[in-house]
Amino acid sequence: MSAILKGLRVVELSAFVAAPLGGLALAQLGADVVQVSPIAGRIDYDRWPVTDGGTSLYWAGLNKGKRSVRLALDRPEGQEIAAALVAAPGEGGGIALTNLPTRGWMAFETLRARRADTILLKLQGNFDGSTAVDYTVNSASGFPLVTGDGSRPVNHVLPAWDVAAGLYLATGLLAAERHRRLTGEGQEVALALSDVMLATVGNLGFLAEAQLTGRQRPALGNDLYGAFGRDFATRDGRRVMVAAISDRQWAVLCRATGLADRMVHVERAMGVDIGDEAGRYHARDAIAAVFAPWFAARSLPEVAEAFQGTGVLWGPYQDFAQLVAEDPRCSTANPMFREIDQPGAGRHLAPHSPLAFGASPRGDVVPAPALGQHTEEVLADLLGLPSSKIGRLFDAGIAAGVDA
Amino acid sequence: MSAILKGLRVVELSAFVAAPLGGLALAQLGADVVQVSPIAGRIDYDRWPVTDGGTSLYWAGLNKGKRSVRLALDRPEGQEIAAALVAAPGEGGGIALTNLPTRGWMAFETLRARRADTILLKLQGNFDGSTAVDYTVNSASGFPLVTGDGSRPVNHVLPAWDVAAGLYLATGLLAAERHRRLTGEGQEVALALSDVMLATVGNLGFLAEAQLTGRQRPALGNDLYGAFGRDFATRDGRRVMVAAISDRQWAVLCRATGLADRMVHVERAMGVDIGDEAGRYHARDAIAAVFAPWFAARSLPEVAEAFQGTGVLWGPYQDFAQLVAEDPRCSTANPMFREIDQPGAGRHLAPHSPLAFGASPRGDVVPAPALGQHTEEVLADLLGLPSSKIGRLFDAGIAAGVDA
Repeated sequence: MSAILKGLRVVELSAFVAAPLGGLALAQLGADVVQVSPIAGRIDYDRWPVTDGGTSLYWAGLNKGKRSVRLALDRPEGQEIAAALVAAPGEGGGIALTNLPTRGWMAFETLRARRADTILLKLQGNFDGSTAVDYTVNSASGFPLVTGDGSRPVNHVLPAWDVAAGLYLATGLLAAERHRRLTGEGQEVALALSDVMLATVGNLGFLAEAQLTGRQRPALGNDLYGAFGRDFATRDGRRVMVAAISDRQWAVLCRATGLADRMVHVERAMGVDIGDEAGRYHARDAIAAVFAPWFAARSLPEVAEAFQGTGVLWGPYQDFAQLVAEDPRCSTANPMFREIDQPGAGRHLAPHSPLAFGASPRGDVVPAPALGQHTEEVLADLLGLPSSKIGRLFDAGIAAGVDA
Repeated sequence: MSAILKGLRVVELSAFVAAPLGGLALAQLGADVVQVSPIAGRIDYDRWPVTDGGTSLYWAGLNKGKRSVRLALDRPEGQEIAAALVAAPGEGGGIALTNLPTRGWMAFETLRARRADTILLKLQGNFDGSTAVDYTVNSASGFPLVTGDGSRPVNHVLPAWDVAAGLYLATGLLAAERHRRLTGEGQEVALALSDVMLATVGNLGFLAEAQLTGRQRPALGNDLYGAFGRDFATRDGRRVMVAAISDRQWAVLCRATGLADRMVHVERAMGVDIGDEAGRYHARDAIAAVFAPWFAARSLPEVAEAFQGTGVLWGPYQDFAQLVAEDPRCSTANPMFREIDQPGAGRHLAPHSPLAFGASPRGDVVPAPALGQHTEEVLADLLGLPSSKIGRLFDAGIAAGVDA
């Protein structure tokens, strides 16, 4: 793996997407991410997508490159060991990342009593500690009501709020570790999933638009808001997305399709200035009506050839199978990808971190661990427990290795 | 503002969502983010949403808390000043963040020749340096073809890949700065927007599912994949999203609606084990048929009352106006929000960072700068230029302050 975060150690107690993704982002940059799970595995251990044999490809995807420790987290002895792992010595240690309720042994004050410079990253649903998940945060966000044609709400399929929250957790963890390095001070860092949504809706201007103008972005199908962009059907039954935001992007689209002269008449017909992106937005249906026959007369390869080297912003729609089978970016020709052999799943294409650090090559993509694969190793390394003691913990059901 | 990243200085040369959002995430944590733009403003300076007067609420939202410097970036003298700003002394300086082509004066080797420990964060469309934007990356991702009912591709409205890329940039920048602090070494860090998409599709298991099973996630409307979740209409014309992933979440949903007894018969009717999440997924239409009349008989406030304190995962759909007007999380009752007065736009609700650091309170939300608001100040502070010299740069059109 990359070594850019060498020396950083994070104990992850998590489930579902956001916190595991935050841990993944750090693990793939070289942090030692120790995922502590209940003996039976976390609640999302069987989450879909799964293989025909029932192995969760979701779990495997989000836990690559981590170490797995199984502990009886419902028993005081298991909690004691988990707390000791968080507090284990080491300059880059003392850091926990979780989306579980932080009470009892996991409360910040309790962890800090063991190690004064503890950093606790805590993801919660809402800022007041109440529950929310990507689905319910998304329904509140305004986006489903402007996705598609507006006839009914359309949920995203990408768990976008979870993904963003995971990356905010990684950012927050590194910011807190920088602060600790400079001042010696640990801290609790809280992040609410709904705040990630609210901040994003605000940062993109949609809250201010509703508040200041009384208007709001309407549902526009696949059209861009305030510029020109739309999907078109090709002769061979494919669809492509085309976008022209800047004046230059608009000019190259008109040139590449040979339809610049027609656009003069669209402008006159619609009575707007299509030299301006707002004008193009207002005239978008007329503009699209001129472009549509051009796409309908061409196959996808012909469109690709016509746009090659022109600077037109466009791309085909692909399903997941086409993405894997046809897109050269989704192959080992892309330096981000490796073929890995994930036990229980098989050999498949797996992504490294999308971040490429000049000072530290990416190295291997390490598969997800088997549940409990590192229990012995971690208890010995971090807590200095002798194998006799570890054996007793296994016998008592306080800790477990890989199931036989 | 928060001071958790005090001492960090980032020169941002950017446009659109991802790189500005990365800068915003750092600025709101206390980094000094100096946004250098062409004299006329960046290409996205008028991007929608806009006020009635034409002020971009999008631009204002993404550039809160930054300093703005206007330079003639198309002239050697302007480029020389920009390069000097990147290289300006200071332990936390020497860092640039950009999504522009990094050639000429912005090439990493050129910047490093001025300051040996330079860190350059470079966002590009594809790993090979070719162009891609959120719209075209999204069409390739597989998600639009499984969003909605599958009859045609449905684009997301949230620019999710840009948002994720911005947060990867923030993470990558802090990782590179940590490495520099430990080793003294700067570096170039590259991130491709399409790699952010590909890594995410892979991390969530969808690439492996297509590759290993030959199946792929179908379009399911607003249903969850592999569990139970769906939207329902209420008596008063609203819609709510309801999700039950874990066994506990399923149990509380059945209990709160009083429909547990009916589900025994759904199980027998469908011939599956709905005690299991995969069973609930297979029986989802029958399950939803039992729940639907319960929701249809109740108003939104009645649903809220019935679910209060039960642990049911649910929430109403809201449009942007309802989000601002009705959701208490979207108000100054939420410690993330402040009322700010954005020049040219007006007083409105603005989000701070969603990250809450125990060691450093959030403080104020600083509005976006006027274009060129900090040109004089930054040239004096970072480069030590006397006001006479700055005056000559203004007169020559090499630099500019705020338009009169």
